[in-house]
Amino acid sequence: MPNSKYIARARAHSNIAFIKYWGNRDDALRLPANSSLSMNLAALHSTTTVEWSEERSADSLTINDAEAGAAALERVRAHLNLLRERLGTSMFARVESSNNFPMGAGIASSASAFAALTLAAVAALGVEVPQRQLSTLARLGSGSASRSIPGGFVEWLAGDFHETSYAESIAEREHWDLVDIIAIVSRRHKRVGSSAGHRTADTSVLQSARVETVDERLRKVKGAIMNRDFSALAGIVEADSNLMHAVMMTSDPALFYWLPLSLAVMQAARRWRLEEGLRVCYTLDAGPNVHCICVAADAERVAGRLAALSPDIEIVRSGPGPGAFLLPRA
Amino acid sequence: MPNSKYIARARAHSNIAFIKYWGNRDDALRLPANSSLSMNLAALHSTTTVEWSEERSADSLTINDAEAGAAALERVRAHLNLLRERLGTSMFARVESSNNFPMGAGIASSASAFAALTLAAVAALGVEVPQRQLSTLARLGSGSASRSIPGGFVEWLAGDFHETSYAESIAEREHWDLVDIIAIVSRRHKRVGSSAGHRTADTSVLQSARVETVDERLRKVKGAIMNRDFSALAGIVEADSNLMHAVMMTSDPALFYWLPLSLAVMQAARRWRLEEGLRVCYTLDAGPNVHCICVAADAERVAGRLAALSPDIEIVRSGPGPGAFLLPRA
Repeated sequence: MPNSKYIARARAHSNIAFIKYWGNRDDALRLPANSSLSMNLAALHSTTTVEWSEERSADSLTINDAEAGAAALERVRAHLNLLRERLGTSMFARVESSNNFPMGAGIASSASAFAALTLAAVAALGVEVPQRQLSTLARLGSGSASRSIPGGFVEWLAGDFHETSYAESIAEREHWDLVDIIAIVSRRHKRVGSSAGHRTADTSVLQSARVETVDERLRKVKGAIMNRDFSALAGIVEADSNLMHAVMMTSDPALFYWLPLSLAVMQAARRWRLEEGLRVCYTLDAGPNVHCICVAADAERVAGRLAALSPDIEIVRSGPGPGAFLLPRA
Repeated sequence: MPNSKYIARARAHSNIAFIKYWGNRDDALRLPANSSLSMNLAALHSTTTVEWSEERSADSLTINDAEAGAAALERVRAHLNLLRERLGTSMFARVESSNNFPMGAGIASSASAFAALTLAAVAALGVEVPQRQLSTLARLGSGSASRSIPGGFVEWLAGDFHETSYAESIAEREHWDLVDIIAIVSRRHKRVGSSAGHRTADTSVLQSARVETVDERLRKVKGAIMNRDFSALAGIVEADSNLMHAVMMTSDPALFYWLPLSLAVMQAARRWRLEEGLRVCYTLDAGPNVHCICVAADAERVAGRLAALSPDIEIVRSGPGPGAFLLPRA
């Protein structure tokens, strides 16, 4: 890119939710039905350069050095429109984004992508905004992106309107050396993306019961993280994942993100914990890959067992990651 | 058996629920949380001989010509105790029961077994009771046994107390030639039996939402059966099965009856219907085997596809079955 005034490069990490976000009270603002909680993932990140220019007549987007498809460009443009409006600029932007992991496979590329995009877009304008506000802006692009702005273990407070729906760290990444061993069971792009999925949440007769009881689970997970109490964490994390997928599969139309191999990994992880004492539990976002959350001391054994379970499983391993941050220009 | 006054032999068929029974308002009386609806299965039945005798000092039980284990004997004795009390006899019974299908694999051996046992036990005493009362008595042994007393397509009215919680035919077996193609994915005895499972239903925060909305689904399924409208039937049957399993897997402890192969069959059946127009839908009781309900004209194709899906799938095929009936003494 040419030497320019309005340019910045940012990196943000993916996150895995321990308490899930599913369904919005307000789809346009992505105000969620409930508060959620996640851990950023050190190994999975998006890096995004934004250059605003008065000479440009349209936004452009490359992903992993290739021109983006129409759907991705449209979603980024919509987000840039919101940022232009809220930040008070009429310039268009050139956006170059890259991920170090496959998109659309349920490891939340939109979270890291929209967090990095938001930070780079804001910084490129030379604007300084507090982290809390950055989180609200990232949320407008992808709900879970709000959680990729702060570092470590993060709570996204549902809030009542735009300014009060943001994420904040509840513990730094160094607080607890949990490991997320992701069993990649499919790299296929999911058929129903999260944004469309969120809109179906209220068609399940189970969604209100999930939402009405989530604060109790959130409180328990926060306590378990604060006390580094894995056995307290494990049951709630699995239960909350099961609750979200129960809502999904009882929506109209029914959404099944699980593949048969996902179920095999879930049942194996639970068996390893309950019958053999391995400190591991499973959780799945809106995709088929199974995040096996474990304590660092048991990570090698969990990884070995996952590899032995099926030749169709690929493994990605990650500890807790930082929040979004700026990089020197490339 | 010796020539005796108090002897009778009865047969009852298994049934597959289109609207599920899960959870009791009263565990001792097996008064269900909700009304349910099922189809009796012609191909799967239990045949039971009961001989009451004043000379016996204890009940005895054989299943498939072998002396029954302690747990099965205990459950049958408990049921005979209730029958003795309600029918006014103090005699003990010799019970010989046989099934033409594997027990405990989720094709409801307890339904046909307790329906046949109840009819034989009552008839052996020379008592004549109306079908409605027989259904209440069978319910005391196994909730779904109440539905194996009447024939064809059967509704079990939840009722408010013992006498009003019984099943009745809503259509005879000849009304609609549906076929249940059961994909047996495991013959292993399930780890958590239905009776224990029912007691966990209220530990799921989703159970009340399932129960509160079931009458609407029941009404739709009855209408679909009356009109022989398969496309109206299919979506509700799958949704109600998903709802029950959503409750199960969000109970404490979580109950997963699905195996990975169960999920593969479910997703295939749904795909065959939605993408290729085959008139088939899936439903699972408290076990891993997948009941593929289809119209007779598509049964061959469904069976062929199931067989091709995995060499680990065995197939049992059944049309609608009759209610419980008496047989000549063996």
